Amino acid sequence: MHAYRSHTCADLTKENVGETVRLSGWVHRVRDHGGVLFIDLRDHFGMTQVLCDPDSPVFAQVEKLRSEWCVRIDGAVKARAPELINAKIPTGEIEVYIRDMEVLGAANELPLMVFGDQEYPEETRLRYRYLDLRREEMQRNMTLRSDVVASIRKRMWGQGFREYQTPIITASSPEGARDFLVPSRLHPGKFYALPQAPQLFKQLIMVSGFDKYFQVAPCFRDEDPRADRSPTDFYQLDMEMSFVEQQDVFDTIQPVIEGVFEEFGGGKKVDKHWPQISYRDAALWYGTDKPDLRNPIKMADCSEHFRGSGFAIFAKLLEQDGTEIRAIPAPGGGSRKFCDRMNSFAQKEGLPGMGYIFWREGENGMEAAGPLAKNIGPERTEAIRQQLGLGKGDAAFFLGGKPAQFERVAGKARDVIGEELNLTDKDRFAFCWIVDFPMYEADEETGNIDFSHNPFSMPQGGIDALSGDPLQVLGYQYDLACNGYELVSGAIRNHKLDIMIKAFELAGYGEDEVRKRFGGLVNAFQFGAPPHGGCAAGIDRIVMLLAEEQNIREVIMFPMNQRAEDLMMGAPSEPASDQLMELSLRVIPQE
Amino acid sequence: MHAYRSHTCADLTKENVGETVRLSGWVHRVRDHGGVLFIDLRDHFGMTQVLCDPDSPVFAQVEKLRSEWCVRIDGAVKARAPELINAKIPTGEIEVYIRDMEVLGAANELPLMVFGDQEYPEETRLRYRYLDLRREEMQRNMTLRSDVVASIRKRMWGQGFREYQTPIITASSPEGARDFLVPSRLHPGKFYALPQAPQLFKQLIMVSGFDKYFQVAPCFRDEDPRADRSPTDFYQLDMEMSFVEQQDVFDTIQPVIEGVFEEFGGGKKVDKHWPQISYRDAALWYGTDKPDLRNPIKMADCSEHFRGSGFAIFAKLLEQDGTEIRAIPAPGGGSRKFCDRMNSFAQKEGLPGMGYIFWREGENGMEAAGPLAKNIGPERTEAIRQQLGLGKGDAAFFLGGKPAQFERVAGKARDVIGEELNLTDKDRFAFCWIVDFPMYEADEETGNIDFSHNPFSMPQGGIDALSGDPLQVLGYQYDLACNGYELVSGAIRNHKLDIMIKAFELAGYGEDEVRKRFGGLVNAFQFGAPPHGGCAAGIDRIVMLLAEEQNIREVIMFPMNQRAEDLMMGAPSEPASDQLMELSLRVIPQE
Repeated sequence: MHAYRSHTCADLTKENVGETVRLSGWVHRVRDHGGVLFIDLRDHFGMTQVLCDPDSPVFAQVEKLRSEWCVRIDGAVKARAPELINAKIPTGEIEVYIRDMEVLGAANELPLMVFGDQEYPEETRLRYRYLDLRREEMQRNMTLRSDVVASIRKRMWGQGFREYQTPIITASSPEGARDFLVPSRLHPGKFYALPQAPQLFKQLIMVSGFDKYFQVAPCFRDEDPRADRSPTDFYQLDMEMSFVEQQDVFDTIQPVIEGVFEEFGGGKKVDKHWPQISYRDAALWYGTDKPDLRNPIKMADCSEHFRGSGFAIFAKLLEQDGTEIRAIPAPGGGSRKFCDRMNSFAQKEGLPGMGYIFWREGENGMEAAGPLAKNIGPERTEAIRQQLGLGKGDAAFFLGGKPAQFERVAGKARDVIGEELNLTDKDRFAFCWIVDFPMYEADEETGNIDFSHNPFSMPQGGIDALSGDPLQVLGYQYDLACNGYELVSGAIRNHKLDIMIKAFELAGYGEDEVRKRFGGLVNAFQFGAPPHGGCAAGIDRIVMLLAEEQNIREVIMFPMNQRAEDLMMGAPSEPASDQLMELSLRVIPQE
Repeated sequence: MHAYRSHTCADLTKENVGETVRLSGWVHRVRDHGGVLFIDLRDHFGMTQVLCDPDSPVFAQVEKLRSEWCVRIDGAVKARAPELINAKIPTGEIEVYIRDMEVLGAANELPLMVFGDQEYPEETRLRYRYLDLRREEMQRNMTLRSDVVASIRKRMWGQGFREYQTPIITASSPEGARDFLVPSRLHPGKFYALPQAPQLFKQLIMVSGFDKYFQVAPCFRDEDPRADRSPTDFYQLDMEMSFVEQQDVFDTIQPVIEGVFEEFGGGKKVDKHWPQISYRDAALWYGTDKPDLRNPIKMADCSEHFRGSGFAIFAKLLEQDGTEIRAIPAPGGGSRKFCDRMNSFAQKEGLPGMGYIFWREGENGMEAAGPLAKNIGPERTEAIRQQLGLGKGDAAFFLGGKPAQFERVAGKARDVIGEELNLTDKDRFAFCWIVDFPMYEADEETGNIDFSHNPFSMPQGGIDALSGDPLQVLGYQYDLACNGYELVSGAIRNHKLDIMIKAFELAGYGEDEVRKRFGGLVNAFQFGAPPHGGCAAGIDRIVMLLAEEQNIREVIMFPMNQRAEDLMMGAPSEPASDQLMELSLRVIPQE
């Protein structure tokens, strides 16, 4: 017989009754039922009930077992009495009568119980991660993550892509975050950087003629702590293709993402139609560039109804340049109580409040209620109702000013309204492409023009577009949003050196600086660069959505805590002085 | 029609004759045949002949094209005349008459030609890697690498393994090489390390109950330059299993490796029988722990034949403790010329020479020749011949002394003899497991005991074995050798804390130091650690063998040069002073 097991803890059924078997695993819990000991023996695959009666030659040893001891047992498989069958587990029809056992690994008193649902502080969970990971939910999350990544790979191969590995110890890659630096021992005073993304390398792979590239790639960013991201590294599905336009990238990646969500979405509906929404429309309709389309609310510009109206606040506001009044329709929100609650929400978010109108059953049929309706009068009120397609029992909320100043709150209000009115379909994954991102933005204070997103994207209209107003230039740049999260981001790249130089010039970067900072790419573009584009999808984010987790650390095997420390392994730590010496470095003492 | 292509450059056959098509790719070369221009248009997939006659509306543009310009062309597919058909390429039956074209990316004068076989210095190749990678051999090597890694993954999944990612920014992992350090910004004066291997994490994954783990894992070692390894990072197939013994690991990994070599070995014979050879026998028989079994030569201990013999040098040598005389049989090497050449080889390797005997047709049948045969006389000579199973036309070489001092040269001589006598079967992959590695070795000068290989391996015989002579303790540790290279290395791990403490104690490490250096693992072993073991296979090495390349840089997309520099991207480089400031670091000026 094998030294450790003839079966896993998920294998035995009544087919095995009468057999002598060997199992290994962890003592999940031990119960004493009138002198008979019941052990739930657990391994990665499942659980088997092991029974030890006082006659067993190993009773004295079994009595000493405690939760999370790792043991090997030998025993005889017996059928459970019909009334004791547990239909919830595959091994529920049998139990194993223990005849021999060996302790493979004993356990000290546990700082964290694997059995049960007790919650523990995150610091405890991370310090004893190997215990935390034995818990059912974590086993499920980690295997889900592994299966999702495997499925992504298979789907990318199926689309004709090959995975190529790009350097990890390399030069700085400009993605807008801080680099992690790695001091070079052989070149004192010089440093490598860990890549924030394989962006430059995947573009170079295209210039090298490989046509289709992907990689499940680790990315490194020295980020300041935030709950929903790893402070050090994360994984992305990175892909790039040559000789393509934007729609080709969409047509390639949609089946991959859609397929993964179908496969692992637990039966939730996965939208097949992924609308393409311009960045501008997304801001107007949803107040964000990562809208949650499970929520049917679509905001609208209602400025015309308030211009010169009796509601002086909005009427006056509209006299200023660049202002708008936007409405958030709230189907089913037509009660004063709900409207007041939403008004308070806006105040908490730092706005003066949200005006509202709601429609109710009145003496002469439907009537519009709320102070705003009174101020602007019945005609304008009715025009608003018709524009928004609302009726009795519905409400609409209004925010006014410069959109940039209230859009974020409007988007949040839309979420809250969707939630509170049960408009948001929780059993669904709703996707949309956000397209036509502006290439540039002006600094609010200085008016200086800078790139608003990725400087390596191809401007729509090519070099001609760069001769006019920079703020009007759109890029072939896109994001994929799902249920309010940004899942994918990408672009058709700017592979023409003259357009690239011009594009950087508009943002205030001289040609010399471009050549210095992005020399590798600039040089490569002088030797027959193909048109190319691609995208990157956040693996951790995808798994979080599928696992229904809110915290990225629930889907990473050994995450850092929010102070970027590994409590289990003791990282970071003070180096030995000879290590620093070898690197020609000295630590500057802190004040 | 698609903006860039209706077909790839490998697609068109005579089925497409008459169609108007669009292709994109690189101008491989342009030939002018009496005013008609022939372009070999190349993409990742293949090559298509494009023809431009003086009537073509784009003749003037096509005339300007040079090698490696990236272009889009439109044209009509025509059948080639029968005598012009090129059967070597899939598109050899057709050519495309160009009617329209667009330059997608022009190219400056080329520092390196893609077309042809010209060799370039490695510095040029690495600086212009994107051109170098367009060459046929590099395209083949990179796609091979990608396909090998994909195949490995599929085979591991097929064996019931899941891939789990382990941290890259983490604590130092003790694998005997130098760590790359990463300064922490949030914790001034503290550093992370990049993992030399995921060894500790994969053991923690076993303690976490995941049963079967693998990862195609990047490993980071700050190595001094050497031709056959990357100075910064490399990839390994890392795997670990719980509740297993050594043979279980062998049975799991053999089908994976064997399958990959069958799939990508280009029809070479792949041995199915992988002998298990002890470390001690490997040294005796092959002079190395990574023997090339394609070479049938097996060395032997011939000491008894020389003890007290007339060959005074060996006879005297054998009076010293720990000395041996070993023979390298050389079937077919029975000529004085060959024997003298091998003797010179040994002298070049720093030994006094190699004695030899060879057997030839003499006056009375077979006779033994060479000075050594004369010295020891016919009986001993015949006994040697019989022990080695040699005959007429064969030779044997002899080396004497302490094996540690001549084993390396003996192994090398065996290689050379195998090569020169054509004994080594080049069309074959021959594997063997090297097992029973000693746990400890004594320092030649100080006599101090230290670990000879991996300190985390389980000693054979457990804690009892650690009470006797440390130098006699063998570990459950193993390597896989293929054609003279170490492909895989692994062990059954020491999961018992008491044995681990004792094992380190023998090597001079106190319990406190063990707990300090390996605290994460030591703590975990106190909470029900399962028995486990695994191995790691060198991906770069496997691909090198399959691609028949001698240099690791031929199978890495963007390798460092031997001074650990990336010439294309300019790494490492001097950081900005504010970056150093943020990290609380100062560079010590060099003398």
